[in-house]
Amino acid sequence: MLPKNPEDFRTIWLSPDDDAVVQIIDQRLLPHEYRIHNLKSWQDGVVAIADMYVRGAPLIGATAAWSLYLAALAADGNQSEIRSAAKALLESRPTAVNLRWAVERVLKCLDSASNADELRRLTRQEAERICDEDVEISRGIGDHGLTLIAAIAAKKNDEPVNVLTHCNAGSLATINWGTATAPIYFAHQKGIKIHVWVDETRPRNQGSQLTAWELAANNVPHTLIVDNAGGHLMQHGMVDLVITGTDRTTRCGDVANKIGTYLKALAAHDNAIPFYVALPSTTIDWNSRDGIAEIPIEERDPDEVSNVYGIANGKATVVRTTAPNTAVSNYAFDVTPARLVTGLITERGICDASEGGLLSLFPEMQTA
Amino acid sequence: MLPKNPEDFRTIWLSPDDDAVVQIIDQRLLPHEYRIHNLKSWQDGVVAIADMYVRGAPLIGATAAWSLYLAALAADGNQSEIRSAAKALLESRPTAVNLRWAVERVLKCLDSASNADELRRLTRQEAERICDEDVEISRGIGDHGLTLIAAIAAKKNDEPVNVLTHCNAGSLATINWGTATAPIYFAHQKGIKIHVWVDETRPRNQGSQLTAWELAANNVPHTLIVDNAGGHLMQHGMVDLVITGTDRTTRCGDVANKIGTYLKALAAHDNAIPFYVALPSTTIDWNSRDGIAEIPIEERDPDEVSNVYGIANGKATVVRTTAPNTAVSNYAFDVTPARLVTGLITERGICDASEGGLLSLFPEMQTA
Repeated sequence: MLPKNPEDFRTIWLSPDDDAVVQIIDQRLLPHEYRIHNLKSWQDGVVAIADMYVRGAPLIGATAAWSLYLAALAADGNQSEIRSAAKALLESRPTAVNLRWAVERVLKCLDSASNADELRRLTRQEAERICDEDVEISRGIGDHGLTLIAAIAAKKNDEPVNVLTHCNAGSLATINWGTATAPIYFAHQKGIKIHVWVDETRPRNQGSQLTAWELAANNVPHTLIVDNAGGHLMQHGMVDLVITGTDRTTRCGDVANKIGTYLKALAAHDNAIPFYVALPSTTIDWNSRDGIAEIPIEERDPDEVSNVYGIANGKATVVRTTAPNTAVSNYAFDVTPARLVTGLITERGICDASEGGLLSLFPEMQTA
Repeated sequence: MLPKNPEDFRTIWLSPDDDAVVQIIDQRLLPHEYRIHNLKSWQDGVVAIADMYVRGAPLIGATAAWSLYLAALAADGNQSEIRSAAKALLESRPTAVNLRWAVERVLKCLDSASNADELRRLTRQEAERICDEDVEISRGIGDHGLTLIAAIAAKKNDEPVNVLTHCNAGSLATINWGTATAPIYFAHQKGIKIHVWVDETRPRNQGSQLTAWELAANNVPHTLIVDNAGGHLMQHGMVDLVITGTDRTTRCGDVANKIGTYLKALAAHDNAIPFYVALPSTTIDWNSRDGIAEIPIEERDPDEVSNVYGIANGKATVVRTTAPNTAVSNYAFDVTPARLVTGLITERGICDASEGGLLSLFPEMQTA
């Protein structure tokens, strides 16, 4: 389980015993088993990202950064080897924009370092910075998003604020605090009554297996629902606010997030419920505008749909739910158009889901 | 598997060997096992309905009718015993309106029969009629719905018509042909190229376990998707038509159907894709108007969400996907407001989802 003090919690760290080993939580095993997994090479990092030991845009970026540190350890100054690692890391998950951001950032060390030792030192320092900065980003998102929850709480007459979230944009998706969950954790710490509807999030069940797990670890009241249920809850006044994460946000405020997010945004819009997306600015793709036309949507292994992981007779077990030979399609993300997004919660503040809104917070991106 | 000739297929029948035994398919075991289950008493019928050996509004009604026949066999003319059975059957699933319709129809035999033998004969005859009429209703829905598919096919330049469906409103939900699937089967029999996107339909996976199974048995091309995926497919022009069933339709055209139907209707509306609901007129609740306000939504056992049925190592296995003590909410249905429904496909024809539309097909319901 998570440590008692969430301030101490991290999802990726250098082994205290061996600084050639990066440690992560094997999130594929949650909530049934909490197992630390060692990354001893950049290839281990590729596997961890592609096979989803880790997931969530910020944590994917941090894992790629640490993997390049492992590549630098092994390459002994051979830059082309490190660039090969970078290429493989970039290809490990096609949609996450800050995978590219993190890789490019660490690659800049190649130009600064004058020898192999310095390269090791600089890549390590850069990976550490990426993680530390991400924690501060989550803190900023949490502080700003908290104001939304506090405003709703003020009108709720001591009833809990009901927040619906999809997938896991939680601590486990970042380095700590999460993006969509940071405002929830901060509200809970402030003593605001809050209750979270947790979408199961098929096919990989990140809601039932990750979000529910970390909310429980932090004592935040929550209820699991199937992905189909949110619309009904919204029709009946049982949701005050939707907050999701995003893997990629366009310059105009379209958001690519876990498949099914679009359906929740439609339902929120139809029921006049605020729909916010929490994001580190590193996940903004300033070069894309029309998310539906421009963002490539990853298709993943059909077995993710057919095979379900759980516990049977006390043992970790995978069951196949479908008949043999049932054809399956498995798109991992969808795009929610900006018109359905009430606002974007970033580390710098909350803005409209539009180019104007984003530029008001990030004026340095005005050019071009 | 289904018989080669779908004309011969039925989901409920009197045992050829013993006319005190009604036989059904234990649909909880599909697609992994095809097992016939014997109902030997009305109490068996209550269990079969409540525990979802059978599901789908028409088949629930037929099962209740046959259960009252079993009650008449046992009651030896004791009407209060049969009325107790009727009461228990009515309470076995709260949402399905034609459960009430079927029970009330068979109960009328109590007034006509002058002795126990006649009561047995009349209840049997009424149950048989309900089944035969349902097959004709499905045939009518199929004939009318076929015209929609044929019209789309005519514009598709020999590309398959892509139909998305949610849950199982198939042969397995009725006596034969289904409601939402009847137009699909009839189009397929006519040689129209058709492909069905099958929503998994959490929590009970009726899509992956029933609809996919029966489409495969009838050689209709199909692809399983998670419930989250439909919006993305619609955004990208991969869905031509949505057809779902409904458990209850109000006089004004609101439709209560499997949880998540509302989300698909929103996505279809947002992408200008026709969204049709197929229904036997027996599922119209002429006494209700506002579905969201008036239709009670059944909450079912949380274990349906937490526990997933499948095959592991060749054996039927149930896994728990959630951590112990995760709170779960399990609403079984939602209501899609008429404004999101392009049209209703009934056995008498296709109409607008409105009081005027329904009354144009069912003018005899004009009164009151």
